Amino acid sequence: MKIVLAPNAFKECLSAPQVAQAMSEGIARVSSHIEAVQVPLADGGDGTMEALVTARGGKTVEIEVSDPLMRPVKAQYGLIDDGKTAVIEMAKASGLWMLADHEKNPLKTTTYGTGQLIKHSIESGVQSIIVGIGGSATTDAGIGMAAALGYRFFDDTGNELPPIGASMNRVARIDSSKVHPQLDKVSIFVASDVTNPLLGPEGAAPVYGPQKGATREMVSILEDGLANINGLWKRDLRAVIDDMPGGGAAGGLGAGLVAFCRARLRSGFDLIADYARLDEALAGASLVITGEGKVDASTRFGKVPAGVLRRAKPLGVPVIVIAGHIAGEVKKLNDEGIMALFSIVPGPVRLEEALKNASGYISQTVEQIVRVWRGKV
Amino acid sequence: MKIVLAPNAFKECLSAPQVAQAMSEGIARVSSHIEAVQVPLADGGDGTMEALVTARGGKTVEIEVSDPLMRPVKAQYGLIDDGKTAVIEMAKASGLWMLADHEKNPLKTTTYGTGQLIKHSIESGVQSIIVGIGGSATTDAGIGMAAALGYRFFDDTGNELPPIGASMNRVARIDSSKVHPQLDKVSIFVASDVTNPLLGPEGAAPVYGPQKGATREMVSILEDGLANINGLWKRDLRAVIDDMPGGGAAGGLGAGLVAFCRARLRSGFDLIADYARLDEALAGASLVITGEGKVDASTRFGKVPAGVLRRAKPLGVPVIVIAGHIAGEVKKLNDEGIMALFSIVPGPVRLEEALKNASGYISQTVEQIVRVWRGKV
Repeated sequence: MKIVLAPNAFKECLSAPQVAQAMSEGIARVSSHIEAVQVPLADGGDGTMEALVTARGGKTVEIEVSDPLMRPVKAQYGLIDDGKTAVIEMAKASGLWMLADHEKNPLKTTTYGTGQLIKHSIESGVQSIIVGIGGSATTDAGIGMAAALGYRFFDDTGNELPPIGASMNRVARIDSSKVHPQLDKVSIFVASDVTNPLLGPEGAAPVYGPQKGATREMVSILEDGLANINGLWKRDLRAVIDDMPGGGAAGGLGAGLVAFCRARLRSGFDLIADYARLDEALAGASLVITGEGKVDASTRFGKVPAGVLRRAKPLGVPVIVIAGHIAGEVKKLNDEGIMALFSIVPGPVRLEEALKNASGYISQTVEQIVRVWRGKV
Repeated sequence: MKIVLAPNAFKECLSAPQVAQAMSEGIARVSSHIEAVQVPLADGGDGTMEALVTARGGKTVEIEVSDPLMRPVKAQYGLIDDGKTAVIEMAKASGLWMLADHEKNPLKTTTYGTGQLIKHSIESGVQSIIVGIGGSATTDAGIGMAAALGYRFFDDTGNELPPIGASMNRVARIDSSKVHPQLDKVSIFVASDVTNPLLGPEGAAPVYGPQKGATREMVSILEDGLANINGLWKRDLRAVIDDMPGGGAAGGLGAGLVAFCRARLRSGFDLIADYARLDEALAGASLVITGEGKVDASTRFGKVPAGVLRRAKPLGVPVIVIAGHIAGEVKKLNDEGIMALFSIVPGPVRLEEALKNASGYISQTVEQIVRVWRGKV
């Protein structure tokens, strides 16, 4: 009997590989004759690198890059497929988590560090790069990232501008003459589930700017800047972004990766599930157990459980979901095809206790589920 | 497919019939083709009457009796088997819960009200009586209960004594001449899992006296009284109690029921399971789901889940346990033969919230379990 363990991370608690490992320990206690296949997943945000590096037996590389305020910082990216594919999370170099509250200001921040990660991976010889974007501190249309790869941004007097949010509406020309020669030899895939366009009321500046520290005035400046860059992409790079869905992801880094790097935007879950070879694991499986920290059953559920269901259903593999917390009625999720949902907590425990003991709870819950699934004892 | 629902009450939350009903609602949501047989259980303590009346479709009778301090109070007992069997919980007439803290004093309290319940049921024509003893306010060797049935207790000057704890060591003679004429025509079964003897360091007075309000001096007086009554049982009633296991239950009411009423002591769970016809329900069942409020998996589990397992195992019916709180490692219980244990709480919720929503939690958890048990969807 093969059981696939394909969880998301339990946010602020356990990484996806840790959850899969805990699940696997529960199964080992039931029987040594059950093949447990760990496929830790992610939705393109936090945990993407770790999930893919574990699922594919890769390694991580740590280098020094610039943080959103151009201060030196260590950041990691992953290498899988014998070094042929890099897995980069923009938040590791340009994340909002790296700034103190008073430092948050998208006029001043840059995605330069993310560009440095891309550059380093290109120079290490990768053929493709997965970029998870989410949790950014920036609204710079990716000009910081582009600058690290050799793009230059000049104002109307011919002065080179620093690649930060505030510079966007002063750029008069994008110069590609010094772009890294290897850039057009790699395929870049952007994992993102944000569908906001670059510009307008649903765009990067008004929707995500405020949580990055933008005041109303800043949002207006940023919007003008994004629009300016959008025009220059057309004129100088022959790249049309306009209202492309997802262009507004990560402060316009989604659009920037497409325009500067000819990247392709894909659903985070699907991209990662493909790289993690989820379908291959599901083939011939008796059951797949997925999970995430919190499932809100009355609205919709997380991208990972939903994605696992979408992949498992056509193969006839039943899906069980475990979660730290299941809010609301589960009927809707059962109706959508989730065989069963279980919380991992053993009683009305405090949150801190639940977080501390989550690994053991997961093992125990999965053990009990599989004992029932397997049938009579 | 037949599934037996055989829970204990969830203490301070839901009665056993309420738990069974909630379980049943969960199963109905899975499929209308599953036969769910509700067998609410109890261990002889709190909830015994309600469980048996529900399991057997009986009724309850309410009468006025005397509380432990001889104040009038309403109390119920159950009638099942078309009125042929009464189910009496001593705590409904003589329970510690009826007294304020300052009223707790086993020298002054009496089991008289329990005797009134027995008398009323006898006069209504029952052939047998189940008496659940537990939670008593008394240490009177059952002389109060006996007095309500016509026994009289005289001191050495021929004065009749009030049947309370303090009178025990002053009794010189037990008079049976006015005993209710129907008493020896009914069979009385005592449901008790207490195995303490009447007398000695493990006896009723030192072990249970203090929680009923006895000081050290009172314990000594009560011990002398119990020993005196024990001697008179031999001499005047030809009933030998001495170190009979369970004689010390409910302040000696266990012994008193045997001596005064020729009752038989039985394990609470077994007695109730037999009357609830658990074995009959288990025959041909695919699964039995039991449960209780809290399972301490690292020590031993409650009498009801353990008893259900003992009955289900030889029939090859798998047992699943649900609980409000599962403390400790469940491995030991799995090893003993419990197929699986699940907590009903959906996350790290507060206790009050869990208590308030327990019924819904139970339905949802049982639904999810049965979906897994039933297999592919």
